Amino acid sequence: MKKLEILDSTLRDGAQGEGISFSVSDKLKIAESLDKFGIDIIEAGNPFSNPKDTEFFEKATKRHWGSAKLAAFGSTTRKDTAPEDDEGINALLSAGTKYISVFGKAWDLHVDVILGTSLAENLSMISGTVSYLRSKGRTVLFDAEHFFDGYKANPDYALEVIRTAEKAGAAVIVLCDTNGGAFPDEISKAVKAARKAVRVTIGIHCHNDTGCAVANTISAVKAGASHVQGTFTGMGERCGNADLSAVIPDLQIKLGNSIVSPERLMTITKTARFINEIANVRLPKNLPYVGSSAFAHKGGMHADGVAKDPRTFEHIDPSLVGNKRYFLLSEMSGRSAVLSKLHAFDETLTKSSSETKQITEKMKELEHEGFQFEAAAASFELLVRKELGKFTQHFEIDHYRIISSMDSLDGLAFTEKANALVKVKVGDQYEITADEGEGPVNAIDKALRKALEVFYPELKKMHLIDFKVRVITSNDSTAAITRVLIESTDGENTWTTVGASRDIINASVVALRDSIEYMLNVISD
Amino acid sequence: MKKLEILDSTLRDGAQGEGISFSVSDKLKIAESLDKFGIDIIEAGNPFSNPKDTEFFEKATKRHWGSAKLAAFGSTTRKDTAPEDDEGINALLSAGTKYISVFGKAWDLHVDVILGTSLAENLSMISGTVSYLRSKGRTVLFDAEHFFDGYKANPDYALEVIRTAEKAGAAVIVLCDTNGGAFPDEISKAVKAARKAVRVTIGIHCHNDTGCAVANTISAVKAGASHVQGTFTGMGERCGNADLSAVIPDLQIKLGNSIVSPERLMTITKTARFINEIANVRLPKNLPYVGSSAFAHKGGMHADGVAKDPRTFEHIDPSLVGNKRYFLLSEMSGRSAVLSKLHAFDETLTKSSSETKQITEKMKELEHEGFQFEAAAASFELLVRKELGKFTQHFEIDHYRIISSMDSLDGLAFTEKANALVKVKVGDQYEITADEGEGPVNAIDKALRKALEVFYPELKKMHLIDFKVRVITSNDSTAAITRVLIESTDGENTWTTVGASRDIINASVVALRDSIEYMLNVISD
Repeated sequence: MKKLEILDSTLRDGAQGEGISFSVSDKLKIAESLDKFGIDIIEAGNPFSNPKDTEFFEKATKRHWGSAKLAAFGSTTRKDTAPEDDEGINALLSAGTKYISVFGKAWDLHVDVILGTSLAENLSMISGTVSYLRSKGRTVLFDAEHFFDGYKANPDYALEVIRTAEKAGAAVIVLCDTNGGAFPDEISKAVKAARKAVRVTIGIHCHNDTGCAVANTISAVKAGASHVQGTFTGMGERCGNADLSAVIPDLQIKLGNSIVSPERLMTITKTARFINEIANVRLPKNLPYVGSSAFAHKGGMHADGVAKDPRTFEHIDPSLVGNKRYFLLSEMSGRSAVLSKLHAFDETLTKSSSETKQITEKMKELEHEGFQFEAAAASFELLVRKELGKFTQHFEIDHYRIISSMDSLDGLAFTEKANALVKVKVGDQYEITADEGEGPVNAIDKALRKALEVFYPELKKMHLIDFKVRVITSNDSTAAITRVLIESTDGENTWTTVGASRDIINASVVALRDSIEYMLNVISD
Repeated sequence: MKKLEILDSTLRDGAQGEGISFSVSDKLKIAESLDKFGIDIIEAGNPFSNPKDTEFFEKATKRHWGSAKLAAFGSTTRKDTAPEDDEGINALLSAGTKYISVFGKAWDLHVDVILGTSLAENLSMISGTVSYLRSKGRTVLFDAEHFFDGYKANPDYALEVIRTAEKAGAAVIVLCDTNGGAFPDEISKAVKAARKAVRVTIGIHCHNDTGCAVANTISAVKAGASHVQGTFTGMGERCGNADLSAVIPDLQIKLGNSIVSPERLMTITKTARFINEIANVRLPKNLPYVGSSAFAHKGGMHADGVAKDPRTFEHIDPSLVGNKRYFLLSEMSGRSAVLSKLHAFDETLTKSSSETKQITEKMKELEHEGFQFEAAAASFELLVRKELGKFTQHFEIDHYRIISSMDSLDGLAFTEKANALVKVKVGDQYEITADEGEGPVNAIDKALRKALEVFYPELKKMHLIDFKVRVITSNDSTAAITRVLIESTDGENTWTTVGASRDIINASVVALRDSIEYMLNVISD
């Protein structure tokens, strides 16, 4: 069992991803969750290029951290500048972290075209920077930028670069596939060459431009790297970085390396989802290990197989990463899929129990009307609870009215107004209220919550994170059935509900109602 | 340059993905786009387990296809059943395809636990099935299910399985990592062993449960596989299949294999996006090669570097896959794409014509608001006609009002009523009318046509055939932008228009209006 060191760069390289913009408070929350999970080094920002990162380090270095060390990130000195006069280097030192990552050029093309300097001058910039930071008592991680492209173009120079960093006192030499264009066999060959050239710890930093970042990282570890870099769920510039939520389980569960305790590994799904929530990025369902579909079985045959022996259709036990097996309820699966869900409520039910039969019937009836429970586990759970008598109805919608009004501006564009009025009944009390919104669904959503928060203030914690519309039986054109999926969260849990109707507003209200009932019945119960 | 054969299984294995549900018409559209792109074999469905797939094959086998061959998919016979008496085998033959994929067990655990039969009986089921299908004149692709797990558990038996399929006449032996748990070096080793065991073409079929499906596929090709399976953008059960939109550029552009012409490869981004649009699946921005961020540079340094020499921060030229470099701060224009469309109206226009510039600007502005013209050629044509002064506005919508009213039946279901009132202006005449419908969109559609048929009786020939709704920028939940695509026909021609708005009704009205204007300007003109 080789012990591997993990550096997470979600807060630095991940922040380069399109649409990612972390506040200082976001960064603190994510850093805390990485520490709790057991990440060794958190590369948290570039204090020279980003003033928000300077503020982060001021706050973060005052906090108490568990096992995680913080690292600030920056480049080697500019050419013709002594380290002590270089603003970037001074900013790195001011961040006050024990660990510092500095990147330097390992590809001759870059030295020439980007730096516009000589190969020798680049080596002395690297040497000067690393030894200066060492002299200030810092542990230096040297990022050999474009190492793999450099190794292909001019192997002697690429290796000379890392030898220089080692001599200057770098604790780790991180080999970077900066453009993300490499394949596993190329990575393996170059890491082996690096291992021969230097004796210090070798690190690996991969990007996903060929779709191989995870495999490339693993291939580097197999070739001798023992420091591993990546980001959670693969956030990062262009196609992103190696996804640590796949790399860590691959390395520990499947390949026997030691990274975190088994108990901490069981929190990786929660950690990945929390980070995506803070980053306001939707976690792709099909993400390895941590996605909500990662252990979801749709084909009837696969579902039956897993019921007989999970090994037949699962490469690992989902509980090892804190994820869950799901059986998708679809046209392709039958009563055994339903049954496996019922067992969460009552272990004694069988395929021939009347409850199993009734729920299967009810589900089929609703699916015929356009509902689909495959992607709406919360609605399915409510359906089961209703049939088993374990559901409390917290409110009724007595009626609602929508008035959408549009006036032409110039015969081409419209001004739009949508208003909703809703009357709800809770116990024997009524509440009637109204709101306006951007479109009818937004208006009724706001009005409904406004009415119900009078009775259930805990609903303030809950909000929608996704709203999906699908038109089905679409040959009937605008009179087709509309299916709405709504994903809600209270910050910790997420759940999805479904509504279907010929009227999109009605379909939305059904999904909203279920979403709120799920919060009241299951989450805050 | 090794010539590789590609099998796309988006319509079969992709359809197993959570939330994927293709109609027969969706399947036909996707198959046509795969054919046009240059896929060799389209594995289009399982005619035994899914009645929709039977209908698909009935329609598809009557069409004329380019270079693509269709394949139906199913399993070997059930135990103790002769092929001619096996319903599954008969369904496969009835599909009427030249190619048939059959899967059989290559892992002894599965033979025992799932089939509950002997290892010898499994071999004779495989042999009987393959030779029977051969005797009916079909080309058989044999999917060795769980080959890699089987090879680890019992290598002799796994190899015996593929030898049996070869002897029985399979044209291709497809090695499947069904559970998706393998790594590139394991794949490589097992493919090499298979190459020694049989002489027929070796295929590879990978799943992404370790995040290595793309790398595993490439490693199999390097080890000697020459038939490659996957799905577009990696759709499929659990974590999905190997993503062909990454695998194909990897193999052809970066590793020098020959798959499609360079011109066709330049349509891979368009093809991937079209398939996702039809599947109603959001294309992750960071998808290798085809994602909208795949060549997006955020860091100023990277953007500067690319401006100096694209090789410095890009592993390939994005135009090779029909994608675009994108600087997140200073957006570049897609003027040449627009120009190619303008040439249909005026051959003399160039990239620097003011019309080209204006239309590009207008299009970008509308795309920023949520419109998308790739799937809505009729709306784009109207936009071009407007800018070139070749558009006649036949009517204005002065205003409309929608009243949706719902009353609770029992607190659970609703009765619904939607009414629309619309006032249109044609020349200097006004017509005001109203109608009711199933939901607000249906109501406004009916009212609008009723008002306009007074002036344009030819509109009676036209009706809607499809209505698609897509929610974009969905982080704003119910206040997100809704994009509506409407497909219309007059019986002879079909055309698609788009509308986008925060309000679904408004988005629908914009698409309806364009649809009617297209009929009046282009079709009946």
